[in-house]
Formats: sequence, C-alpha cells, structure tokens
Amino acid sequence: MERIYFDNAATTSLDPAVLDAMLPFMTEKFGNPSSIYSYGRESRLGIETARKTVAKLLNAHPGEIFFTSGGTESSNTAINAAIKDLGCRHIISSPIEHHATLHTVEHLHHSEGIALSFVRIQPDGHIDMAHLRELLAQSTEKCLVTLMHANNEIGNLLDIHAVGNLCREFNAIFHSDTVQTVGHYPFDLRNTPVDFITGAGHKFHGPKGVGILYINENVKIKPFIQGGSQERNMRAGTENLYGIIGFAKALEIATAEYEAHSTHINNLRMYMAEQLKQHIPGVTFNGDLYGRSLYTVLNVAFPKTEKSEMILFNLDINGICASGGSACTSGANAGSHVIRAINENPDLVAVRFSFSKNNTKEEVDKVVEKLKELI
Amino acid sequence: MERIYFDNAATTSLDPAVLDAMLPFMTEKFGNPSSIYSYGRESRLGIETARKTVAKLLNAHPGEIFFTSGGTESSNTAINAAIKDLGCRHIISSPIEHHATLHTVEHLHHSEGIALSFVRIQPDGHIDMAHLRELLAQSTEKCLVTLMHANNEIGNLLDIHAVGNLCREFNAIFHSDTVQTVGHYPFDLRNTPVDFITGAGHKFHGPKGVGILYINENVKIKPFIQGGSQERNMRAGTENLYGIIGFAKALEIATAEYEAHSTHINNLRMYMAEQLKQHIPGVTFNGDLYGRSLYTVLNVAFPKTEKSEMILFNLDINGICASGGSACTSGANAGSHVIRAINENPDLVAVRFSFSKNNTKEEVDKVVEKLKELI
Repeated sequence: MERIYFDNAATTSLDPAVLDAMLPFMTEKFGNPSSIYSYGRESRLGIETARKTVAKLLNAHPGEIFFTSGGTESSNTAINAAIKDLGCRHIISSPIEHHATLHTVEHLHHSEGIALSFVRIQPDGHIDMAHLRELLAQSTEKCLVTLMHANNEIGNLLDIHAVGNLCREFNAIFHSDTVQTVGHYPFDLRNTPVDFITGAGHKFHGPKGVGILYINENVKIKPFIQGGSQERNMRAGTENLYGIIGFAKALEIATAEYEAHSTHINNLRMYMAEQLKQHIPGVTFNGDLYGRSLYTVLNVAFPKTEKSEMILFNLDINGICASGGSACTSGANAGSHVIRAINENPDLVAVRFSFSKNNTKEEVDKVVEKLKELI
Repeated sequence: MERIYFDNAATTSLDPAVLDAMLPFMTEKFGNPSSIYSYGRESRLGIETARKTVAKLLNAHPGEIFFTSGGTESSNTAINAAIKDLGCRHIISSPIEHHATLHTVEHLHHSEGIALSFVRIQPDGHIDMAHLRELLAQSTEKCLVTLMHANNEIGNLLDIHAVGNLCREFNAIFHSDTVQTVGHYPFDLRNTPVDFITGAGHKFHGPKGVGILYINENVKIKPFIQGGSQERNMRAGTENLYGIIGFAKALEIATAEYEAHSTHINNLRMYMAEQLKQHIPGVTFNGDLYGRSLYTVLNVAFPKTEKSEMILFNLDINGICASGGSACTSGANAGSHVIRAINENPDLVAVRFSFSKNNTKEEVDKVVEKLKELI
C-alpha cells in the first residue's frame, strides 16, 4: 500500500543528498576526530567545516555552536547550566513546552527547590506577554525564561525578539527550544537577544541522533556530559561524525531552498484547511492558523464522535501517517498536554498533520477524501 | 600514500555489513520510533529487535539494555545515578580510568562533596586488590566503585568478577567502563556481579554516536537526560535509529567471529612485540603484555631520544596511524595520565598500537621496518 506521510513535525525522511554527504565518513573517512594523524585530521576538518557552515547559516560565531546528540540533550544542557552555572533560581516556562523542557524544569523544581512559574497561554495558543512581564517584574531571584520558538503540536510561533528583549530588561537568561524552526526559518543569531537555542537534524531532513546547542558567546557554562575534551571541553564523547556532517548539509539545503519550500508547504497546509472546512462539518483548527504559526503544521479539531475517536487508527490502516500529539508522548497514550492547556473542550478530537517539501497536493486530496469517508 | 591504521582502540572503521544493515533505516524506514502508525512501528520494531539481540549476546534481559549516545554518556549516567538515586556518598575509582569516568567523579567530588578515593595501581598496571578491600572496609558511607574493565591505553584487564564480588560483600554499587571489551570479549551479565556496564559502537566496527548502558534489573535509577518517554522513560530524545541498528549488527558480527578475530589480532600483537624486541634496542612494554591484557593493544615504551620524541609525527608522515594516549585527550597534548600513573620514568616515550580484524602481518612488517628507520 502506498503511504502518505503527514507527520513531518515528528521526524522527516533523510534527504538523499544528505546521505551522500555522510557516506564518505561512514566508509573511508572513519578516523577519530581527536586523533592527531591523517585519518583523525580529516574527520576533525569535517566537523569544523560543518560547525562553520552551521554558524554562517544561523549568523553566529563558530565558537557558539556545539554539537550534541539531539534537541533533548541540548535543552537539558542549557536549562541545567542556567541553574548550576549562571545563578538562576527561578524558571519561567509555559505549560505547552516540549517534555524535554517541561520534565527538566519540573525535575529541577522538585529536586533542587528551584522556583517554577508558568506563563499564561491564551486560547489561540500564544503566551500572554503581559503575564510574562509581570512574572519577571515580581521575581526576586535571577530568572531563566525557557519558551519554545514554535509549538510542535499546534504550530504557534513565539515572538522571540520581544521575549528576548523583555528578558534583557530583567537580566534574565533566555533559552528557546527552536527544534521546530531551525532548518525551517532563517536565523540571525547575532541580532537576536537569546542565550541558548537548540536544533535537531532529523526535523529538517537531516540525520537522527544529532543536534546543536547555540550558546551565546557572552554566556559561560560548564559541560553537562563530562569526559574528554571534545567540543572545546563543552560536550564529552567521541563525536557523531557523520551525524554532524549530515546536520550541516541538511541545514545548507534547507536554507538554500527556504523560499520555494516554505511557499510550497504553506500552500499545501492552507489548501488542506480549506478543503476540510468545505467538506467536513464542524471542523475547527487549534492554534493560530491564519496568524503567527509554523507553515508546516495543521492541527485539526474534529467534533468527537465514535468515528473521530478512531481516526488515527483508521488513517493508519489506510496508509496515512498523522499524529494526536508529539511523537515523544504518543507512546504514552496520555493525550496531549498542549491541547489540554489551550482548550479543555472534551468534545473535540485533535489531529496534527504536518508537511514537508516531499508532500503534494494530490496527497492532500487523497487524505481529505479519506477523512470524508472516515469521519 | 597507503595508510596503515594501528589505532583501533581510538575508533574502528564501520563494517560494510553494518552499514548495509543501517541503510534501510536511513532511507525508506525513517519513521519516528515513538509514532504509532506503520512508519513508526517498523522503526520501533527495529529498535526493540536490536535491544533483544544485544541483550541475548551479553546474556542480559532486554529490559536491562538502554541505548545512549555513546560510552561517555553511559558512564555519566551510571555514576551520577549512583550518587543521586542510589545513595552512594563515597566513590572509589582509579587514576587510570578514562576521562569520562575521572572527570565525572572529580566533578561530583568538588561540586557535591562526594568523598573520592583512588585505588593504588601496581607497576604492571593492575589495581591493588588488597587496597581496594581496605578502602571498602574503611568506608563509613555507601560506596560506588567505578573501575574500567580494560584500560584503553595499556590494555590491562580487570578481574571484573573478583571486584564485583568484593563490591557485593561491602554492599557497594559497581560500575565498570567496558567500552574496550564490549564487542571484543564474550559477556555473561546474568552471572556477573556488576550493576552498570557501558559500550560504544564505534569501538568494534559499529557506528559512532551510539552506545549502551546496561543497568542491572535490581538497580532502579532515574534518567540523566529528561524529556520524552523513550527507552522506557530512562533516556529521553528521539532515538539514533540507524545507530542502534548498527550497534546490534556490529555486536552480532563481533560475537560470531570472536574466536577467529581474537586469535588473529592477538597473533599480530605478539608478533609485533617480538619483532620490536628483536630489532629495536631498549624497547619495553607498558602494562601486562604477557598476562591479563586486551589482545588488541600493544603499548610500547621507546627509550627517549630526539628521534623517539618525534615518532608519532614521523609515523604519521609515513601514513602510519598510532597514538600516544587515548584519542579523547590527544588533542590536549598534556601527555597520558595513565602512563604517568604507572611509570614516572621520564626517559621513555609511550606509543600505543592497537589492532583490528582488518590488519595484517604485512602491515606489522612495514611498521616495524619504518620504526627501525625512525627510532
């Protein structure tokens, strides 16, 4: 059966050109990047070239880019460092963060007694900026603000400049989980008031098992994983060499093709939204579809019926991949904490469709046709 | 120029059969293992099959095997958990551990006030078992003993059963860094008195960026990296899918071919030792060459001369890859803490040659010939 993959916010397929860039480092160029002889030096060169590429594409200094095992490790590193190395004793976050953030801040709250506040979320899924200002103004401790750039379930985009400026005003450290936006939007980090951002290769047709942590040069932290002197003493462990090469290549392709792909993907998303509104009674959308939102994500609310409750299951039977929440929690079957936070309405069933450059209008037509049948 | 790679303790080339096993998961089988639809399920199946394979080969339960980003993360997880979750307040280690262990225990000593003792090392590189017993007997706190199974620089093998039994006697937690032995020796974990062991795929012709942590089923710890519910809530972050597939495949090959390869490699090592003794005056060997030692590592001590001090550099010019210490520290140029710990003799230059199944007797002849010329 032909499969239609509409869950690109969970993971994307590896771009064949990225695999091609990785393969030499999976065959003849296998040296340990820390070794000083020829094999080692060519691996080291591969990594440092990748770092420069990533830095240039994000307009950062190469010294600000650190390779990690993925977005989760990057967020763990940043959040822990803000507490342990930068003196933050109060974390301000939101109830709709990814679990990599939520579980980390909750752990620090419970195990180390760090104060924890959550900024209010508006019904459209955006954070309440006035409440964020209030929380910062009232805090008697140095704050870490950790708010994601784009929500992985409903797609809402944070005004990262506005939040960053507010953090500067109150001398707070600002970490933003940018896993859904790195590789999907242009970044200009030298002109962005942020201390830490994170990225994961597999979200933009790069490899799994590799990510980045951007650490603003004005911020000095200690490593999260201790050991060898890799990543300039900031992240120990033999580097995921081909992962790093693949990350840089994927970001290069994503940046070069941003205009074309973002237009194509947004058109698919808006077309699907229109088709659903036309053909399925009672359909609404979670998040801010027509406002500040990822062009990749369409979060649909179907009226709850016996049929709609089985929709993901039935879509799967028909070869259509979509999700109820983030992949990282779908195994847990506990429902989406994001949807709960924005909408307590028990009469809706949320389904996230998320698109990539590889999807087509014909696929949208097929999925809408199938949804008409299944709902 | 033809290159001769004699630094297999730093990293090994990826076995082409391992790459073949990984490639389907880098192309069509790209689903997020946490996703519930078809693409996700085939990824999940790949990971759980890999886990069962690894568990079977090490004679452990699948529930005791956790995939990580590598040996360093595994050791960080185990050591931190022993302190934070298992109540250990005293760490007993040795001065010849890998930095993944040493830097972690030193960090816990300095930042959390955990007591830290080092067991004495004998001149042959083995630990002083009587001293270990003494340290355990004198301790007023619950101990974590962290001692590597095989030293990565000089090759000495620990009697893991004797140390484990001693730990049981004193109710101590026992972690062993087995990065140099997993994939090189048979393991029988159900009958080994150890709480944590670690492995890294790239040390036995598997991929970089992936490792395992074995956690004995009797030990309950919390995750080191917080977030999603991957690895049964023990290690958050989207799995390095192809890395995990490759790890299991590499371990499968290593186990199947253990007899043949270990004999071949040990023959190369002993042949090279004999040739060096015959042809280079004053050569000795660090560690316990003729005793309990890795069959993969030959650590040679050359008398210090102007020429021998330049030996690694000149070997490299001639296309021969060997190292002065571990790769993880070679960039730092600070010399080997292992060699310093066993031998304060400043008149010797240590060079580690380490072999794999791909090396040949002809390569040993060429390297010995070149050494005769260069020393």
